Amino acid sequence: MKIIALMTDFGDRDGYPGIMKGVIWSIAPNAQIADLTHQVEPQDILAGALTLARAWKYYPEGTVFVGVVDPGVGTGRRAIAARIGTRYFVGPDNGLLTISLEQAETAGEPVIIVQLDQAEFWLPNPSRSFHGRDIFAPVAAHIVNGAALEKLGTVMREPVRLTIPQPTATVGGWQAPILHVDHFGNLATGLQIEALEGQGCTIHFGDTEIPLVLTFGDRGPGSLVAMIDSSGYLAVCVVNGNAAQRLKAKVGDMIDIRYRPA
Amino acid sequence: MKIIALMTDFGDRDGYPGIMKGVIWSIAPNAQIADLTHQVEPQDILAGALTLARAWKYYPEGTVFVGVVDPGVGTGRRAIAARIGTRYFVGPDNGLLTISLEQAETAGEPVIIVQLDQAEFWLPNPSRSFHGRDIFAPVAAHIVNGAALEKLGTVMREPVRLTIPQPTATVGGWQAPILHVDHFGNLATGLQIEALEGQGCTIHFGDTEIPLVLTFGDRGPGSLVAMIDSSGYLAVCVVNGNAAQRLKAKVGDMIDIRYRPA
Amino acid sequence: MKIIALMTDFGDRDGYPGIMKGVIWSIAPNAQIADLTHQVEPQDILAGALTLARAWKYYPEGTVFVGVVDPGVGTGRRAIAARIGTRYFVGPDNGLLTISLEQAETAGEPVIIVQLDQAEFWLPNPSRSFHGRDIFAPVAAHIVNGAALEKLGTVMREPVRLTIPQPTATVGGWQAPILHVDHFGNLATGLQIEALEGQGCTIHFGDTEIPLVLTFGDRGPGSLVAMIDSSGYLAVCVVNGNAAQRLKAKVGDMIDIRYRPA
Repeated sequence: MKIIALMTDFGDRDGYPGIMKGVIWSIAPNAQIADLTHQVEPQDILAGALTLARAWKYYPEGTVFVGVVDPGVGTGRRAIAARIGTRYFVGPDNGLLTISLEQAETAGEPVIIVQLDQAEFWLPNPSRSFHGRDIFAPVAAHIVNGAALEKLGTVMREPVRLTIPQPTATVGGWQAPILHVDHFGNLATGLQIEALEGQGCTIHFGDTEIPLVLTFGDRGPGSLVAMIDSSGYLAVCVVNGNAAQRLKAKVGDMIDIRYRPA
Repeated sequence: MKIIALMTDFGDRDGYPGIMKGVIWSIAPNAQIADLTHQVEPQDILAGALTLARAWKYYPEGTVFVGVVDPGVGTGRRAIAARIGTRYFVGPDNGLLTISLEQAETAGEPVIIVQLDQAEFWLPNPSRSFHGRDIFAPVAAHIVNGAALEKLGTVMREPVRLTIPQPTATVGGWQAPILHVDHFGNLATGLQIEALEGQGCTIHFGDTEIPLVLTFGDRGPGSLVAMIDSSGYLAVCVVNGNAAQRLKAKVGDMIDIRYRPA
Repeated sequence: MKIIALMTDFGDRDGYPGIMKGVIWSIAPNAQIADLTHQVEPQDILAGALTLARAWKYYPEGTVFVGVVDPGVGTGRRAIAARIGTRYFVGPDNGLLTISLEQAETAGEPVIIVQLDQAEFWLPNPSRSFHGRDIFAPVAAHIVNGAALEKLGTVMREPVRLTIPQPTATVGGWQAPILHVDHFGNLATGLQIEALEGQGCTIHFGDTEIPLVLTFGDRGPGSLVAMIDSSGYLAVCVVNGNAAQRLKAKVGDMIDIRYRPA
């Protein structure tokens, strides 16, 4: 099985991801291709990094992820491929892998990264504005065909890393920035369940106190709740509703977590 | 051939359907996966039920449909799998199968439904908010791998059923509620062609009389027409235009059908 | 390898493209299906023609493209299949192939077109409004199964052609209409790089002069630039921004190209 999963900010209107599929199948006819999403906000590298980090472990070993959120296309930014644990990643060297790399490093998984500099694995005469088609798709196809990373490029050690906004401990709890607002209006933070375990706490957004519950079923439809989401992080939601709209909340806004007095 | 067709209200932005694909391929590497749609309005079970009912018969026998429009995730609602005729369905027990079951019962096709209660066919430690990833995707993958429904759960008889708004006969015709507004703004009802055959009739929406035609070609672009749609039901359309916008019509509004005096 | 690439204006909400996939797999179980896009503006044949023309050469030989932007469904318009060079196309005869045909004719590639008139290759009782499901999808599946075009229909010579807005030479340069605005707000014209080579020139939109650059990296984020896009045509863009919004530009508006005095 040879899976390539695509994640871009190309949108679904113009056929750009479809063109990448044609390029892949021209080189690796038996590749199975999934669209992770093509609706990352244009140039939003953080959103792309989060999407990759949430998804990769659910894919089989050997899967190749192509992530193209690439505000630096046509500049001197490097193109890279990486093996992180047992999966592969291809894309611009701009921080898209930041969280996935941290996960692997925490888990002690091996990482190898190469700067893509072997043009014989690209389309001829690559354009300056569509590296997804001309460089990343063909490189991904060659990887599922068995090409070693070391043949595709030169080993390098320091990929670009984003500064991911982190939860910070306060005197009486935590402040956790909203990292992502999803399709349902759920507000995801980067505060892991372990930080809260064994502690009674209350959750606040501005002046609004939000009850911490185990599951949507603990409150009725329309209720504002805080809970641990399916990735293990604190999130604020409205049961069958939209918390982002209710709270007028957006990425970067702060969720306050206050421990209850013992 | 092992096909899994996904239908959710997850949207296309966050990668949730893509994560389900990774789970499926981790268990059933050769599954062919189709996206039916991920743009069902959040929590709109009726729209999901209509989408499944319009689609399943066009897929090969043995296809597994995963339908996740799931306002009750994290409550006590059951998870089910069903064989309806020769296709399979996996999802929450909340009425998503209502119309597909009616179609099978009308056709005299066999139906078996099980409550999913065998956790060895799920991902370990399933979350309380993403059963599409943790329960439904793995169960679908095990079905295409050949697992019998009876091994996945306990046979049950009474799945939850929606009350589907029905056309009602009037003294001089029918009243048919709009069930769905599609991408083109076409207004679909649940009134079947057989109810009208052999009867001259006029179609009305509020004060507007709408001619009943055989095909778009019977009127010029911009014309409001009523016709039998590609699923065999009465629909109101604008030729090369948008009837929902023209009439300010929405799901639940009534279309009146009046027989012509003989 | 048997690839079918779908391009429609059906949108992603109602499951129509998913139904076409079921039909295809019912006939050609091993077909690999790609979505080129289903977000062509309803009835916008020119946009569909551009999308096909930009994509087909990146797909393997033998790929079957199904293009359904079909304002004439249910009228007398013909249904066609074509082999253009080594790829196949199926859809309504309304001009969707105009640019792809021109490309093939310029390159001297062989073209054969048939009018689809052999109903045994369609679904039984085709509807009058969903030929994508009832005619085009099954015909595409039969083509990947090896059916010769001449068995599917009757050879014909004069498909409908669109009048594609062309760049026109002026005394001191060119006027090039905007043909497409993409997801990023980039404004694409039909003026090829060869028309500009060896000439110094300035680019104008209304009163705004726009510098011609080689690549996004030549200017900072937010800069308005003109460049040769990844298809070889003159385009106007904002680096990491949206030129359509910045200039309030739309399809049909004119880009002026003025040669510099020698």
